Amino acid sequence: MPLPFASRLDNVETSAIRELFKLLGKPGIISFAGGFPDSAMFDVEGLREASQKALAEEPGAALQYGATEGYEPLRAQLAAFEQSKGVQDIQPHQLIVTTGSQQALDLLGKTMISPGDKVIVEGPTFLATIQCFRLYGADLVSAPIDSQGVDVDKLEALIREHKPKFVYLIPTFGNPSGALLSLERRRKVLELAVRYQTLIVEDDPYGDLYFTKEPPPPSLLALSKDVPGSRDWLAHCGSMSKVLSPGLRVGWLVAPPELLAKATMCKQFSDAHTSTFAQATAAQYLKSGRMPATLDRVRKVYAERALAMGDALKRELGDAIEFTQPQGGLFFWARLTGAGGKVSDAAEFAKRAIEKGVAFVPGAPFFAKEPDRSALRLSFATAGVDKIAEGVARLRQAS
Amino acid sequence: MPLPFASRLDNVETSAIRELFKLLGKPGIISFAGGFPDSAMFDVEGLREASQKALAEEPGAALQYGATEGYEPLRAQLAAFEQSKGVQDIQPHQLIVTTGSQQALDLLGKTMISPGDKVIVEGPTFLATIQCFRLYGADLVSAPIDSQGVDVDKLEALIREHKPKFVYLIPTFGNPSGALLSLERRRKVLELAVRYQTLIVEDDPYGDLYFTKEPPPPSLLALSKDVPGSRDWLAHCGSMSKVLSPGLRVGWLVAPPELLAKATMCKQFSDAHTSTFAQATAAQYLKSGRMPATLDRVRKVYAERALAMGDALKRELGDAIEFTQPQGGLFFWARLTGAGGKVSDAAEFAKRAIEKGVAFVPGAPFFAKEPDRSALRLSFATAGVDKIAEGVARLRQAS
Repeated sequence: MPLPFASRLDNVETSAIRELFKLLGKPGIISFAGGFPDSAMFDVEGLREASQKALAEEPGAALQYGATEGYEPLRAQLAAFEQSKGVQDIQPHQLIVTTGSQQALDLLGKTMISPGDKVIVEGPTFLATIQCFRLYGADLVSAPIDSQGVDVDKLEALIREHKPKFVYLIPTFGNPSGALLSLERRRKVLELAVRYQTLIVEDDPYGDLYFTKEPPPPSLLALSKDVPGSRDWLAHCGSMSKVLSPGLRVGWLVAPPELLAKATMCKQFSDAHTSTFAQATAAQYLKSGRMPATLDRVRKVYAERALAMGDALKRELGDAIEFTQPQGGLFFWARLTGAGGKVSDAAEFAKRAIEKGVAFVPGAPFFAKEPDRSALRLSFATAGVDKIAEGVARLRQAS
Repeated sequence: MPLPFASRLDNVETSAIRELFKLLGKPGIISFAGGFPDSAMFDVEGLREASQKALAEEPGAALQYGATEGYEPLRAQLAAFEQSKGVQDIQPHQLIVTTGSQQALDLLGKTMISPGDKVIVEGPTFLATIQCFRLYGADLVSAPIDSQGVDVDKLEALIREHKPKFVYLIPTFGNPSGALLSLERRRKVLELAVRYQTLIVEDDPYGDLYFTKEPPPPSLLALSKDVPGSRDWLAHCGSMSKVLSPGLRVGWLVAPPELLAKATMCKQFSDAHTSTFAQATAAQYLKSGRMPATLDRVRKVYAERALAMGDALKRELGDAIEFTQPQGGLFFWARLTGAGGKVSDAAEFAKRAIEKGVAFVPGAPFFAKEPDRSALRLSFATAGVDKIAEGVARLRQAS
């Protein structure tokens, strides 16, 4: 007799991408498939010092059980970090530390979603969000996007039609879209939150990775001060993973008090608290003042790589591919046009590409509904500029 | 309009214990209330060296995203650790690393429990387990225990009656019971698993903390080799929290392959993976060979404290209290008899005790059903022997 698993597992499927990732072990493959930062950019020395300081100054706290809400010195540092990005009115008690921002999504799902509830996400959106919310029984509705982010008029129509539990957006350099929600649309999203009394979840792991001289438009969290009442309908997920280290598993959730209290209760029974050793290390790192230089270095390297990839894609694939050059983040989101009789199905292209020694992720699984089979995601984060040129040349051979 | 929270939150209530814990900040309180190990016992030097080695030898792996199943060198060390405790046939791929064993419970809930499903737990059992499973909609059934652990005849009757999704036990030095399931009953539990094709979940965070010269009876996991077929119906949750450091948040789950695969999928969308920095630190620590000496030291100190508390309780409270002297773990589980007109309600006793400057946890919240209001839990882990004597003297004043 098989084990009688919970019915919620029927709502998810094993990722199609997993099959692809198995092929990445092939020797000599150049990978644009991953969603992770480049290990070579980690400030190992800074993190070593931070972890030593954590153990030297407060070994008891760094190694003992801690409050579910998070380690107080880290909450204070994270509040200050958000303040440095224009969030004027944030206090440490208005956020909780989560085990990566993935856990913030999980806690939002656990706290908010009853089976059958509607949740609006972008089409395309982060793959693990789709599965995470479906495990709680969400019925996902897909709002279309363009290079300026989610189409706010269509979003409004969908909110009116579906009365969702919440709307999940990655407004800044989205995964997989790379899109940047315009300032005007950001205001509109916050106004919709207030008008329809609908929670907006802003997932913001990439906002610090901008390639322009000036930062992108403020996060919804920072902008909420300009839209009266919107802060009551806004949850914000932050992460150290893309800028400092994913291995620490340090993220955070800012939310209205009642939601934060419920999420904290759910977290208590999910993992009690996030590793205090990792939290104390992150707190010491932020306190050390090394973060601004780390951000500068990371932005510079990823900006070069993004430029190299954009140039190579135009040079090698010409009008067989279309995309908007990303202004930040880790990803190109592109569409195969089929021009000149080239391949237009991204899954087929991915198979051929692997044979030529280069990997990327087809775009279809990133859609909760109605996949675009011509779309693909290319990460420029982990390959140097020479490898990027070589990898895109291989893409041409496969096209 | 309030936020529309998920219906699953209706199944849990804010812990009564929380209110009590707020009072623990009072100056001069001697606390027997906590469920955590003594920070003074942490091998800070060993963990410092381990964390440095992790960053020196493999900074990329320790700081990067990792496999959801866990960091391979840690899985190998944990398998070897289980082997050292008599689990003969365990391989690294048969366990996954979890963010504390609390997350193993959460993953079991997510993987197995559909709303309305029956789950059998001990009465009393771990408070966070009750709430964790209820969040997934479990209808908990309580199996009675004595100082030899769960009553296996009654357990069999309850399995027959309720056909539960699984049975959750803390067989070795249970929280809060301190009880030790006898070898005979362990065999019977495994036989019941096979006979009724019912999953048994063994939660084992305290098994290493024994005070006797010889170890306690083998874990259900170790014993499963003697009961054909039982390994297919057994999940085992392990933890580094009570013996090494809770702040690392390193636990593990051993389970049959299909269950382990589903739990891994659920973990992917819960927190992606456990902190690789914490995992690499734990792996280096286990590899360093310091664990046996750490265990010896911890066992010796807790054994002294348990002895001191037992003596003091007899001396100060006499026949007003009854208990079985624990042979391991962190807790005394006791009943107020009311003899000599002393207080017999543990909640009332707890209030009076706080006024006298000593804290413990009343037992009622540890019961999923039909609480015993005369029961209480006393931890001897964090107070030295002098403080224990002083604290129990205060209990007499409050009685």
